[in-house]
Amino acid sequence: MDQVLAASKPDDWRSLDPERTLHLELPAGVIVIELAPEFAPRHVDNIRTLVRERFYDGLPILHVQDNFVVQWGDGEGTRSVGSARRTLSPEFTRTLEGVPFQALPDRDAYAPQSGFAGGLPAARDPDHGTAWATHCYGMVGAGRDEAADSGGGTELYVVSGHAPRQLDRNVTLVGRVVQGMELLSALPRGRAALGFYDAEQSKPLITRVRLAADVPADERMALELLRTGTPAFSALVEARRNRTETWYKVPAGSIDVCNVPLPVRRRP
Amino acid sequence: MDQVLAASKPDDWRSLDPERTLHLELPAGVIVIELAPEFAPRHVDNIRTLVRERFYDGLPILHVQDNFVVQWGDGEGTRSVGSARRTLSPEFTRTLEGVPFQALPDRDAYAPQSGFAGGLPAARDPDHGTAWATHCYGMVGAGRDEAADSGGGTELYVVSGHAPRQLDRNVTLVGRVVQGMELLSALPRGRAALGFYDAEQSKPLITRVRLAADVPADERMALELLRTGTPAFSALVEARRNRTETWYKVPAGSIDVCNVPLPVRRRP
Repeated sequence: MDQVLAASKPDDWRSLDPERTLHLELPAGVIVIELAPEFAPRHVDNIRTLVRERFYDGLPILHVQDNFVVQWGDGEGTRSVGSARRTLSPEFTRTLEGVPFQALPDRDAYAPQSGFAGGLPAARDPDHGTAWATHCYGMVGAGRDEAADSGGGTELYVVSGHAPRQLDRNVTLVGRVVQGMELLSALPRGRAALGFYDAEQSKPLITRVRLAADVPADERMALELLRTGTPAFSALVEARRNRTETWYKVPAGSIDVCNVPLPVRRRP
Repeated sequence: MDQVLAASKPDDWRSLDPERTLHLELPAGVIVIELAPEFAPRHVDNIRTLVRERFYDGLPILHVQDNFVVQWGDGEGTRSVGSARRTLSPEFTRTLEGVPFQALPDRDAYAPQSGFAGGLPAARDPDHGTAWATHCYGMVGAGRDEAADSGGGTELYVVSGHAPRQLDRNVTLVGRVVQGMELLSALPRGRAALGFYDAEQSKPLITRVRLAADVPADERMALELLRTGTPAFSALVEARRNRTETWYKVPAGSIDVCNVPLPVRRRP
């Protein structure tokens, strides 16, 4: 992997767009989330409004369920959403057209095809003309209640365990953690049912969330992501599918979409 | 899942065998590991000797790599192994014969077939007559260096992230955490390369490891595991493959072997 990245060209990388990047600030540090307007344009717009109107500031992390998710937000639904919407119609899938899809040839337990689209791990069903982002580690979704249209971004979760792909097409995925995931994944697990924090556990509070575009330029993290449509990325996937390090005695010969790294670096 | 378990019969459950169960004690609590003699008889014997001769007591957790593994043991290779062996020939795969295998019909990215054997998530290759335990969350393996025969149990790791199935058939898996996984998975991540703890991070120390057979009966945890060969387990798999809870709008229709829960309960 290091060799592949060392051989990449400057154009193989893209900068984070500050209009689609969040800084989620906890006392322990900053988590950077890239939003996914290709899959969830309405949710991304709504989350942008919620952020700019400081909806998330001071809200708690509500539950941390081992090998599943970390969820934060307005659990009681009592905080004003200002000019944003509390709920939205779902964006569980999208049409195939209009988003380039780099398919993997590998078997996938949950979809006819998996691969990458919009910089994210994704899947598609050509027979039904649909594509969707997949619940891999680090993916961020909009929690909802029973009704499909009961989410909107007032509660968000991040996948912190083995990919719960059964959630695909059942929740709107809104982005991905590109830096600082360990600040969430190492949080103490909630001791109540479903990983909720019980009364004796103090809930970590979100200091604030800012859109990167609203962060002074000298405080922004200059991060770049490897483009998934490049030969460098294809070489990376192959290097992970069939490891050539001498430590490996049997190459896997195949790869799960959620095991493909999506490299992030500081801009050189 | 609750309904399926509520409908299970007493005989659907098996007690942990104290001769193949470890209590790994950290200051934060006890982790229970079931050993896997069906897949790694030599390693299990060796680990039993290491435990009984107190090899692991006082050793540190060495690295905690986010979305990968937690590893502990004798990193320098300087502690005496007593009457145990420091290294063993590998037990990466076994023959198909002699271990009942409950195959899943679902696609698997890494093997021709996946399923369950010896109470563990597993895979098999009928064309080559081999079976192996799979690197799912909570599985415990014997760390090794470059050479295939350089492991033996003096360093152990547990999978703490999305299943790194590329390790299948490359490392000897020796068991599975059946209780207390969150005591390992929520540990602070190491800040040095590969998740090693750096000089400023204090390494958590193992208080001691005991074979359950050597633990006084009133201190043993009376745990039971659902047998994977039962109709109750098949019903559980199906309930997870196609969720019938009204929250789910689209059933997955399929399942990844590493997303099948292996239920553990206190003996009623």
